[in-house]
Amino acid sequence: MQKYISKFQNQYLLLQYLVKWLIISAIIAICSGIASSIFLYSLQWATNTRENYQFLLYLLPLGGMLIGVLYHKFGSGVEKGNNLILDEIHQPKKIIPFKMAPMVLLGTIATHLFGGSAGREGTALQMSASIADQFTKLFKLKNRDRKIILISGMAAGFGSVFGTPFAGAVFGLEVYYMGSIRYKALIPAIMSSMLANYVTHFIGPEHTHYHIDIFPDMSLKTFFLISLLGIIAGLTARLFAKSTHWWSKLFRKHIKYSPLRPFAGGVIIIILTLLLGTRTFLGLGVPTIVDSFSLQLNSYDFLLKLLFTAITLGAGFKGGEVTPLFFIGAALGNALSLFIPLPMAFLAGLGFVAVFSGAANTPLACAIMAIELFGIEIGIYAALVCSISYLFSGHEGIYGSQIIGDAKH
Amino acid sequence: MQKYISKFQNQYLLLQYLVKWLIISAIIAICSGIASSIFLYSLQWATNTRENYQFLLYLLPLGGMLIGVLYHKFGSGVEKGNNLILDEIHQPKKIIPFKMAPMVLLGTIATHLFGGSAGREGTALQMSASIADQFTKLFKLKNRDRKIILISGMAAGFGSVFGTPFAGAVFGLEVYYMGSIRYKALIPAIMSSMLANYVTHFIGPEHTHYHIDIFPDMSLKTFFLISLLGIIAGLTARLFAKSTHWWSKLFRKHIKYSPLRPFAGGVIIIILTLLLGTRTFLGLGVPTIVDSFSLQLNSYDFLLKLLFTAITLGAGFKGGEVTPLFFIGAALGNALSLFIPLPMAFLAGLGFVAVFSGAANTPLACAIMAIELFGIEIGIYAALVCSISYLFSGHEGIYGSQIIGDAKH
Repeated sequence: MQKYISKFQNQYLLLQYLVKWLIISAIIAICSGIASSIFLYSLQWATNTRENYQFLLYLLPLGGMLIGVLYHKFGSGVEKGNNLILDEIHQPKKIIPFKMAPMVLLGTIATHLFGGSAGREGTALQMSASIADQFTKLFKLKNRDRKIILISGMAAGFGSVFGTPFAGAVFGLEVYYMGSIRYKALIPAIMSSMLANYVTHFIGPEHTHYHIDIFPDMSLKTFFLISLLGIIAGLTARLFAKSTHWWSKLFRKHIKYSPLRPFAGGVIIIILTLLLGTRTFLGLGVPTIVDSFSLQLNSYDFLLKLLFTAITLGAGFKGGEVTPLFFIGAALGNALSLFIPLPMAFLAGLGFVAVFSGAANTPLACAIMAIELFGIEIGIYAALVCSISYLFSGHEGIYGSQIIGDAKH
Repeated sequence: MQKYISKFQNQYLLLQYLVKWLIISAIIAICSGIASSIFLYSLQWATNTRENYQFLLYLLPLGGMLIGVLYHKFGSGVEKGNNLILDEIHQPKKIIPFKMAPMVLLGTIATHLFGGSAGREGTALQMSASIADQFTKLFKLKNRDRKIILISGMAAGFGSVFGTPFAGAVFGLEVYYMGSIRYKALIPAIMSSMLANYVTHFIGPEHTHYHIDIFPDMSLKTFFLISLLGIIAGLTARLFAKSTHWWSKLFRKHIKYSPLRPFAGGVIIIILTLLLGTRTFLGLGVPTIVDSFSLQLNSYDFLLKLLFTAITLGAGFKGGEVTPLFFIGAALGNALSLFIPLPMAFLAGLGFVAVFSGAANTPLACAIMAIELFGIEIGIYAALVCSISYLFSGHEGIYGSQIIGDAKH
């Protein structure tokens, strides 16, 4: 009898655990879903405005300086961005200041309004995790729970900003340790990402749709060719991380007053844009990503986007790396279709997730993202390419605070 | 210059790693794919023969005794089955004997020919891992590599027997530690599963197709209802593991001579079949699984299949648990459609993977399997339901040698 009572109590504890995390996840999801929606709408506005008022590019240095001053004056304790979240998961010290959310939002909108080449996942993760962390205080949660909250916050931010809830959950679980996943936050991460995506869907901003019309049949030829793509994607991811760090060091070394760094970065972006005579590499670059599934791009476009983004982020603009990594990967796949006899859209889709996988060291999340964006036909191909890219990208990715859980080889 | 040479060497080492595992994975895949094909064809033959010659059921006790004698005489060192593979991954002692492969194949075919209620993943894993392990000796590999070989063997067996390569790879990575995934074997597992599935596809046995025609829109109602399904699936998985252990203990306690245990089990299965007046619960039960997506079954069918399988496996028949778990889960989802206002096929599909997830403690593999079998629309729903089932199924699953990597709550 005693045994049955204790079993019943055990089930009751599980139910309590589930309800507790359901409530917390729902709160995280509502905040994160609203934040992502506001962000996506304002990003749309910033992008449209930049395209309609082309002179805005010339204000990029000034816009950069504004962002710089903002972070210089008020940014103490939040300037580490994504890495701060990872650090707090590994070694909890103090609640992430709420100001991280509005600051990164403003910084990212300014970056995109004036034409910096940056992404949006950093913004979504930082908004979502810093808002989520406020509930740690409110609910007086312990460090163990706080970890779960931060992971769920990242999951919710990622899932809702890209419209890929399963990938968002796995991303949150996968990103803080390189080479392993631990399940302590499994259910909260899934619930937060799922519900945040629902909230964003409910509010209404549209996610971009990509389409791959032809998938090759599995054959040994396909297997070898996409493995080659995986290697090149991994090396490209490595080049991206190295370049961003290189530019960042360069700016830091030569410009002591931090707000002047994005100013200088802005000037270089303007000069490059004028030299090239195209605005293709400014902003997120979503139209080019869409094009890469159906039109032949220049074979060097992926390198130019890499350069623009490394300068933008190295100089201290805000936003994140992921959408430029999609661009770089899709353009790389597109370029490789000149040499690799496989359908262009298929290669672009694989490159899209593979370069990101190598740079963020999140192969499973990226393979699942590929399925959520392009359909299950890409499944095992994406898993292979993302893993090979992950192997070849080295141990220093875009998130410096990732801890190596299991070395790559 | 030195720096660049060392970098180049590093890339070269990676390439060497990739080629090495490509070769080993290809060998594993060829063996495993052929083994799975032979197995699937002979399973088809055994099932058809049993259906055509109904008297075969009455030979179940004798067939069971034959399997018992086979394992009693020749089975020393392989009778632990799946758990032996997991043990060797955790604490490598000695190469798994090759005889495991033919013995489990024979045992499983006999089980199905005479009407035992069992699965096939155990057979696929054991054939594939024991064959793969022979190459450890051949290539004189170290323990570290041997672990990867065993994981890849399981991945290849699972992926090729169910026709779900991505799920197979994740299953191999997920099954040996409960609550965490480590990436050391990531690429070998993906390559082995992908290529083994290709080999099986090339040879020709058909995998069953399931179809879910209507997916509900995401809403809070759907969210809560499928969470409930997840809880019930987890408890069912727990009941399954407990029942199998209970019957196994019962047979061991009362019957000292091991070959008599499946004899007794066979007698009970015959009596139950005659009492119920239906052969629905014999064998794999694939036709009923397919039916559960479109016809209303009896609400207690999942419990009867659970009972038949627990007796069959507890008595010492061979095959594995997974397909009966699919049956139990799909029938459970089907039964719940009487109370839960969601489409029947959707609930059956979720139950299909969720009970398995709870019993095997492999939530990610199961969610990915759901996508590979039913399409991406089920993605995040399956992830939620499989994780909740995993939470509620307790720490003792069907694989006793799983080590807890991260406690569930």
